[in-house]
Amino acid sequence: MKFGGTSVADAERIKRVARRIVDKREAGYQVVAVLSARGKTTDELIAMAEEVSDAPHPREMDMLLSTGERISCALCAMAINDLGHRAISLTGSQAGIMTDTSHTKARILDVRADRIKTALAEDQMVLVAGFQGVSTTSDVTTLGRGGSDTTAVALAAAVGAEECEIYSDVAGVFSADPRIVPGARKLPVVSFDEMLEMAASGAAVLQLRAVEYARNHGVRIHCRSSFDDSPGTVVLSAGETMENPLITAVTHSTAEARLTLTGVPDEPGVAADIFRALAEANVSVDMIVQNEPSSAGGRAEISFTVPREDLRVARGALEPLASRVFKDLSMQEQMGKVSIVGAGMRSHPGVAAKVFSVLGGEGINIEMISTSPIKISCVIASEHVPRAVRALHGAFGLEGPNAAEAG
Amino acid sequence: MKFGGTSVADAERIKRVARRIVDKREAGYQVVAVLSARGKTTDELIAMAEEVSDAPHPREMDMLLSTGERISCALCAMAINDLGHRAISLTGSQAGIMTDTSHTKARILDVRADRIKTALAEDQMVLVAGFQGVSTTSDVTTLGRGGSDTTAVALAAAVGAEECEIYSDVAGVFSADPRIVPGARKLPVVSFDEMLEMAASGAAVLQLRAVEYARNHGVRIHCRSSFDDSPGTVVLSAGETMENPLITAVTHSTAEARLTLTGVPDEPGVAADIFRALAEANVSVDMIVQNEPSSAGGRAEISFTVPREDLRVARGALEPLASRVFKDLSMQEQMGKVSIVGAGMRSHPGVAAKVFSVLGGEGINIEMISTSPIKISCVIASEHVPRAVRALHGAFGLEGPNAAEAG
Repeated sequence: MKFGGTSVADAERIKRVARRIVDKREAGYQVVAVLSARGKTTDELIAMAEEVSDAPHPREMDMLLSTGERISCALCAMAINDLGHRAISLTGSQAGIMTDTSHTKARILDVRADRIKTALAEDQMVLVAGFQGVSTTSDVTTLGRGGSDTTAVALAAAVGAEECEIYSDVAGVFSADPRIVPGARKLPVVSFDEMLEMAASGAAVLQLRAVEYARNHGVRIHCRSSFDDSPGTVVLSAGETMENPLITAVTHSTAEARLTLTGVPDEPGVAADIFRALAEANVSVDMIVQNEPSSAGGRAEISFTVPREDLRVARGALEPLASRVFKDLSMQEQMGKVSIVGAGMRSHPGVAAKVFSVLGGEGINIEMISTSPIKISCVIASEHVPRAVRALHGAFGLEGPNAAEAG
Repeated sequence: MKFGGTSVADAERIKRVARRIVDKREAGYQVVAVLSARGKTTDELIAMAEEVSDAPHPREMDMLLSTGERISCALCAMAINDLGHRAISLTGSQAGIMTDTSHTKARILDVRADRIKTALAEDQMVLVAGFQGVSTTSDVTTLGRGGSDTTAVALAAAVGAEECEIYSDVAGVFSADPRIVPGARKLPVVSFDEMLEMAASGAAVLQLRAVEYARNHGVRIHCRSSFDDSPGTVVLSAGETMENPLITAVTHSTAEARLTLTGVPDEPGVAADIFRALAEANVSVDMIVQNEPSSAGGRAEISFTVPREDLRVARGALEPLASRVFKDLSMQEQMGKVSIVGAGMRSHPGVAAKVFSVLGGEGINIEMISTSPIKISCVIASEHVPRAVRALHGAFGLEGPNAAEAG
């Protein structure tokens, strides 16, 4: 069971989480629970660090940030003990989450769950501080934003859990964001591949990395609400899914930006220079479009999108290449992206054509397009995103009996 | 170097501590610094625990409380790195503070300072989270209130430090509390024995336990101000002190309470029953006075003092003994204590007589008396304490050139 920050934001909610864990135990399960930091704790700690340092040292940042989840776990363990049950809180290190030494974005190398297994065998409930581990050099590390989902999936794999339940303030995975599409449907089942595409294209309900880990280790994820008992969405491998709908969901993002480089010499290695510079600055590039020069010896134009928050860093990384690698750099800040995802798309041609015609019918200009076997993404102006999501959701008939109001 | 909670209360102060540590390094020393939790952090964490639990589980309390010092250390390490120096923060566990399993009041069993020594050898400054350790069962433990002083002394012993500097908002050890006696003198040197008596009788500048540890391991302590560079007070073994004054200081406490049991049968084992019950309830009894019965087979009266905050617990522990062990229990809540401490007292009779005559001359009634070779303590009504401290400080001529205003 994994509970996010809003689920443990205050004393009342922590007690509710404690009750929920105890209920699961009383239903006959052994429970390992992963908790995030309470509410805005992580943001407050980051603000403290920025007060004392212009560029906080990553190792020390991890020592600082890892305290938030420990506080949540200790408080919740107290609440469970008060309910007459036995619970023990463990740090990432005590729980055996071994990572590499990449502070603030460490990767899990191994999970040594001996101490968890011992505690479970002694009939204790185990609460593990999410988002953190211990490095090969015995330093505290953190896994990056949203790392608690990854902790939960990794522990579920290590202890051979039946299911990894991810509790949050969202009742499951929806066919679109219910804040934009009131008739969005809660999906009972989603395949790993679909979930990966959805997480990568804007669905915030699960971290991409946690879904990848779950797919690689065959961990069944159940996303559900921490505020009620209704079943949520189960993410499992494609072979287990009952149905194979043409389109599963419409996802979106309104926080994209586009950079366009013009006057790029049509020579081998130039594009590599550009994207190496961006990678070294830790900017993740999403879509790339290159227009071939119209004549031999001509110059090309390259456009690509990055998360809007990375735009300044991206420009800084590219400026040293000016004149040698490109002539002009222009930026569009207010870009968004709308995607449709569905495993059934593979075997049904014509989906792309329908997407373009729906958006065209709405008078929305498509700036860039990218596709995978189970996804079509279109970059559009961010102001048009809500309208595009509603139009696509309607056109592909995604409303249904599990609409958001019911969930 | 050990810095208390007020010294790291905000970003500016943390930067000042960082600067101070770097200055010491630049003066040619290797530095290990122990930090407390920032300002009111510990109180806030305790309040959180009380919100979720009526009786917070001690193991979880330690997991919770240990986060405060880690935050201070991580922030200070960031600030030092920003100054162009290398610093590393360590938890109590990483620093090798091995304790027993008595959660919330653990005792240090061993200090395995290998990691600290390695870091020092690599020319790093080492910041250690005070007040905490790791138990023989790999759980996080805390050393009890003020435990950071003990951490500092224990590390000083383990690394063979020249000196253990304790920085706080007090400029050193004074001949009396300067808030009560404006002419109180800052003492350049105090012996361990005197410091132990002073800490036990109300001087808050150093934890009793830290002084005991320092005496047992021969660690030289230097108490000084975190806000200026003036020398403070050095605590060292008696053989090293330059002078042996008759009286070193007047200490006091205004938070005592007295319990009196009447009708106590004059039989062997009765007093033991009483004080065993109090010990089991974790009440520390200070002074005890027993009046012998006037005739054989008569009944005695026993009075004793406890910290005022323990009064309710003490009464609760004694009530089950009523009628069998005593007839009546009465309590005086507003008691105080004034003590004079001085290593020279040993060889000078007449000090006690002078104390009694000074207090008598002030019209202050002495309720109980206890003495050691280097201390005389008198329990008096707490309202008279400030007047008694000033009278004794004056009568023994303790004003002098290092008066508080100058320090």
